[in-house]
Amino acid sequence: MASAPSDALRRRHDNVRAALTGASLDALVVTSLPNILYLTNFAGSAAIVVLDRERIRFLTDSRYVAAIADTRGKPYECPDLEMTVVAGSYDVRLAEALGPYRAARVGFESAHLSVARYNWLARTLTADGAPNPLAPTEGVVEEARVRKDAYEVSVLREAGHRLSAVASSVYSLVRAGRSERDVAADIDWHLRRAGFQRPAFETIVGSGPHAALPHARPSGRIIGEGDLVVLDFGGVHGSYCVDLTRTVAVGKPSDRARQVHEAVRQAQARAIAAIRPGVSRFDIDAAARSALAEQGMAEAFGHGTGHGLGIEVHEDPRVVQRRPGVDTRHEAVDTGMVFTVEPGAYFPGWGGARIEDDVVVTDQGAELLTMVTNELLEL
Amino acid sequence: MASAPSDALRRRHDNVRAALTGASLDALVVTSLPNILYLTNFAGSAAIVVLDRERIRFLTDSRYVAAIADTRGKPYECPDLEMTVVAGSYDVRLAEALGPYRAARVGFESAHLSVARYNWLARTLTADGAPNPLAPTEGVVEEARVRKDAYEVSVLREAGHRLSAVASSVYSLVRAGRSERDVAADIDWHLRRAGFQRPAFETIVGSGPHAALPHARPSGRIIGEGDLVVLDFGGVHGSYCVDLTRTVAVGKPSDRARQVHEAVRQAQARAIAAIRPGVSRFDIDAAARSALAEQGMAEAFGHGTGHGLGIEVHEDPRVVQRRPGVDTRHEAVDTGMVFTVEPGAYFPGWGGARIEDDVVVTDQGAELLTMVTNELLEL
Repeated sequence: MASAPSDALRRRHDNVRAALTGASLDALVVTSLPNILYLTNFAGSAAIVVLDRERIRFLTDSRYVAAIADTRGKPYECPDLEMTVVAGSYDVRLAEALGPYRAARVGFESAHLSVARYNWLARTLTADGAPNPLAPTEGVVEEARVRKDAYEVSVLREAGHRLSAVASSVYSLVRAGRSERDVAADIDWHLRRAGFQRPAFETIVGSGPHAALPHARPSGRIIGEGDLVVLDFGGVHGSYCVDLTRTVAVGKPSDRARQVHEAVRQAQARAIAAIRPGVSRFDIDAAARSALAEQGMAEAFGHGTGHGLGIEVHEDPRVVQRRPGVDTRHEAVDTGMVFTVEPGAYFPGWGGARIEDDVVVTDQGAELLTMVTNELLEL
Repeated sequence: MASAPSDALRRRHDNVRAALTGASLDALVVTSLPNILYLTNFAGSAAIVVLDRERIRFLTDSRYVAAIADTRGKPYECPDLEMTVVAGSYDVRLAEALGPYRAARVGFESAHLSVARYNWLARTLTADGAPNPLAPTEGVVEEARVRKDAYEVSVLREAGHRLSAVASSVYSLVRAGRSERDVAADIDWHLRRAGFQRPAFETIVGSGPHAALPHARPSGRIIGEGDLVVLDFGGVHGSYCVDLTRTVAVGKPSDRARQVHEAVRQAQARAIAAIRPGVSRFDIDAAARSALAEQGMAEAFGHGTGHGLGIEVHEDPRVVQRRPGVDTRHEAVDTGMVFTVEPGAYFPGWGGARIEDDVVVTDQGAELLTMVTNELLEL
């Protein structure tokens, strides 16, 4: 399992601590597992972190104690970590761990704590008449996660490289007479054989009219001659997600199919060309959209141009249309941001096309993390 | 996609409505996707339901509108469903949908709503000085889900049948010289080919010393002669989860390996024999534990004997040890409950064994949903 070096973890802690100081908080209770992984390298399924000015209190259960202990003295050990082993309820141990902070202000992740857990915790901490130390926060760790550090970029590069290799080998699986479901099973097998821990999401194989559905679930539909087939798959490598889409033709594509594919290809190229530090993510989306509009396909592109990638397969920044009510934080993209560029054009009943690659923003513009031909392959 | 018949949905609604009446609530906001699926057949990734005395207000976005409309007039149409299409924010539309209930008491699922969303909603509904209509509830729909109806049992039977067939075909994949990761990739491929929508969880292949880790992630370890190998995998069929574990020997097992495997096998048999309506789930767990204790392996069995299966792969009832602080709801198992029976024995550094099958409780006792030999196979 790849893990971030201790220095990188320490810088992440410092960034979060600076945000806590800015918000006049003495500590932060972290309940989001992706955020915990970011701060500690912990990739298990149950833990809580309390990060204060000096240390990381780490609550986990017996299943994971040995794995944490094994990191002691290693170059990827989490600095200043103090472990608490949870035998029964995590929340009971968390309330105990918060004892020393009862005169302090302790942030919690309001998007990652349920009302039920919060109410129990607040009730327990104030049972003796003490004031409630808990203060809601939003996106403190996510704010740090949006720009990837050097370690993260290196893992994402390797993951993108592997995913591109998988793409090259899955083309041979798509042919007339096979079902979407069988092709999807084979893609997942190739992902695993390429060393991915798991698919990053449910693999999409949309053929013929199903190619018009951006989130098509692979069905029993038999792929036919002349179909466009959208293949959208991703993998998790070293806890980081990458995501790639290609649209291929089975047999000879119609003129219309060529036209749609080429329009999407141009839209993607224009969006990628627009990427550089300081550019608005809304303008990157607009670049893709303008290329499709010139081909009379503005209406055919109903989703956003891209989404951030990292520990989660959908994270900030969102490369979407500027619209009233859309969150405008992180409007300008910056070096170290990693996201997909995936325009598409969809025509209900007929079919569609989508092309997706992953990029990291550098001083020079967009560096592609995935690289495999995006011309219309005829299989 | 398999779907529950309209009559079954109506009975589920009636059960939940009776619970609302009992709690003096006029409506329930359902934000848990498994609960939404249970009430409506909706298997997508975004929706909110407001269930009141007469109807189901169903909020979803444009991606899913066509799929819902397609169910009209079908035998699995959700009764009394009124659709609201969400263009921007789900919570904005939910606040609007709750307008008519502002003088009422509206339950929400406190375990499935974050503090951030709750706070926004409460603030919005009370902005004009109106009283807050929202009241926390816990486990209202889950309470109905714990006993499966006839439709659910039929889907789980079919899923168990398919999973047993997968088990038979994966034995040939396990041999000395292959890595755990390669075997896991092949198991997942067989799951997909057997018609499962996806694996129900990350497939476990634990060989040699890794067999001592109940949640072993498949690694690059090469399986060797004499290893015990724990294979634990599950699939989602028609939105329902099944789960199966077998432990096999590669080459000739040692006497110790035979002994451990046989003790686990006896523990499972004793637990299954104890199952009938009215029996305490703690006593089912104790039955498995007593068999291992007789072989001096009490300490080697560190986890619970089983967990409920359904729309989620871990749900009630929990077949665990009676201990202070353990939730005692649903202590007696009842007809229609579906759960795993999966004792194990683990010896750090040496290895271990686990055997798992799925059962449904009937008037006669336990009906096995999975059926494949549980003798120690030598591969």
